[in-house]
Amino acid sequence: MNPIEKYNQRAKNINSLLCVGLDADMGKIPERFQKMEFPQFEFNKWIISETHEYAAAYKPNSAFYEARGDAGMKELKMTMDYLIKNHPDIFTILDAKRADIGNTNNGYVSSIFDWLGFDAVTLHPYLGKEALLPFLDRADKTSIILCRTSNPGAPEFQDLKVDGLPIWQVVAEKVSKDWNKNKNCMLVVGATYPEEMKKIRSLVGDMTFLVPGIGAQGGDLKSVMESGLNSDGLGLIINSARGIIFSADPKKEAGRLCEEIRGYLG
Amino acid sequence: MNPIEKYNQRAKNINSLLCVGLDADMGKIPERFQKMEFPQFEFNKWIISETHEYAAAYKPNSAFYEARGDAGMKELKMTMDYLIKNHPDIFTILDAKRADIGNTNNGYVSSIFDWLGFDAVTLHPYLGKEALLPFLDRADKTSIILCRTSNPGAPEFQDLKVDGLPIWQVVAEKVSKDWNKNKNCMLVVGATYPEEMKKIRSLVGDMTFLVPGIGAQGGDLKSVMESGLNSDGLGLIINSARGIIFSADPKKEAGRLCEEIRGYLG
Repeated sequence: MNPIEKYNQRAKNINSLLCVGLDADMGKIPERFQKMEFPQFEFNKWIISETHEYAAAYKPNSAFYEARGDAGMKELKMTMDYLIKNHPDIFTILDAKRADIGNTNNGYVSSIFDWLGFDAVTLHPYLGKEALLPFLDRADKTSIILCRTSNPGAPEFQDLKVDGLPIWQVVAEKVSKDWNKNKNCMLVVGATYPEEMKKIRSLVGDMTFLVPGIGAQGGDLKSVMESGLNSDGLGLIINSARGIIFSADPKKEAGRLCEEIRGYLG
Repeated sequence: MNPIEKYNQRAKNINSLLCVGLDADMGKIPERFQKMEFPQFEFNKWIISETHEYAAAYKPNSAFYEARGDAGMKELKMTMDYLIKNHPDIFTILDAKRADIGNTNNGYVSSIFDWLGFDAVTLHPYLGKEALLPFLDRADKTSIILCRTSNPGAPEFQDLKVDGLPIWQVVAEKVSKDWNKNKNCMLVVGATYPEEMKKIRSLVGDMTFLVPGIGAQGGDLKSVMESGLNSDGLGLIINSARGIIFSADPKKEAGRLCEEIRGYLG
């Protein structure tokens, strides 16, 4: 099975495009977890139990675990073991924003796809396709290339024009036309740039976008859904982290956002 | 003290620009280490004992440690504790090629600069300066931005022309003129592209370059030294990993390369 089909099936089964960002920031998780032996894992387990019925995907950001060194890495692994055992049908993304040269990437491939067991990883395009082959060649796993990121400073670099086209557009075309031989690529397209999302959708057919930036970062769901859905009524992975996991009631908040997404689906 | 001064002082003290790449690939370290409880740490300790008199810097690549999950992260930490205790004057770089958006980078800052204790980290430019501020604002630490990488596929992206200038040149100018407010930035410039190195040197004054690609990747030391030295006879961190650490005699090989470098110094 193409790895992206795992996401599509889950999304169709539960009629949701919601991805819950498992960004278990130690400075922000509730105090009752902070005292536990495995605070990030216990917090994640609770968030998963509250949100899984609405979640087509889960996406931890590696930085929040690496901040705690080997202890954090262990709890990220425990989180993945728990997810794979209890919710094997939910798509999993490590937001790690990696990319090294050639064979060095094998270390990240081993760590992220094999040791941790993620379905997908986010990657920088700067080193080119040749460098990323250890990821791209894993036809059983998904490579999600940074195209248009959600941060306010994204234009500094990504709006530079190459033969009249912004770099984000060049990346979108490279990935869709050349890097995606195994049909295992997605693009990161921030919710905070809906006009760019519309343009990218017009360029890349039905490719799936990972969409950060809804909620705390100010992205608007309506604009995203109108700009980004593909011809199958899929093609988007709508991530929300802080807005759900640090809310007073994560279950209610995930349910609310899921319902809002469903309002735009067929 | 400006963090780059630590490197300069060490380089001057031992008259060397050599950086030993501590890429403790488990598939390649000698069998006698593989059986030990902490194979990567014990291997690194041995390499450090053999090479420290020639080393102005050490640079582990994070991928080789992450490949072993939390166990590898622990051995990377043990390696840094050992280096900081025994060789506090040697400059340390984590080749991690990170870059996330804004505050998420705090996790990497905590992990790399505070928990592990590195002097410097390598970073992707794709998200722009605003995203990298958590690194750049650490005036006590060095941010090394990928400019021209050493891999054969580097031109695909980095040679794209923006207003007639290749992207690697745009990055060099951005970093030197705008991102380097704290005088704590360096650039990655691969040994495999000496013409580009010469051009970058002409653009950025005396900034220091981290230079991968000597040895196994085919970069030529003579071209690098002729293209890259700055006006102080410094400005280069010449990395060699496999060519030293997996050679039959790492001490001899480090000494040989160090002597070769000295041949081009004042």
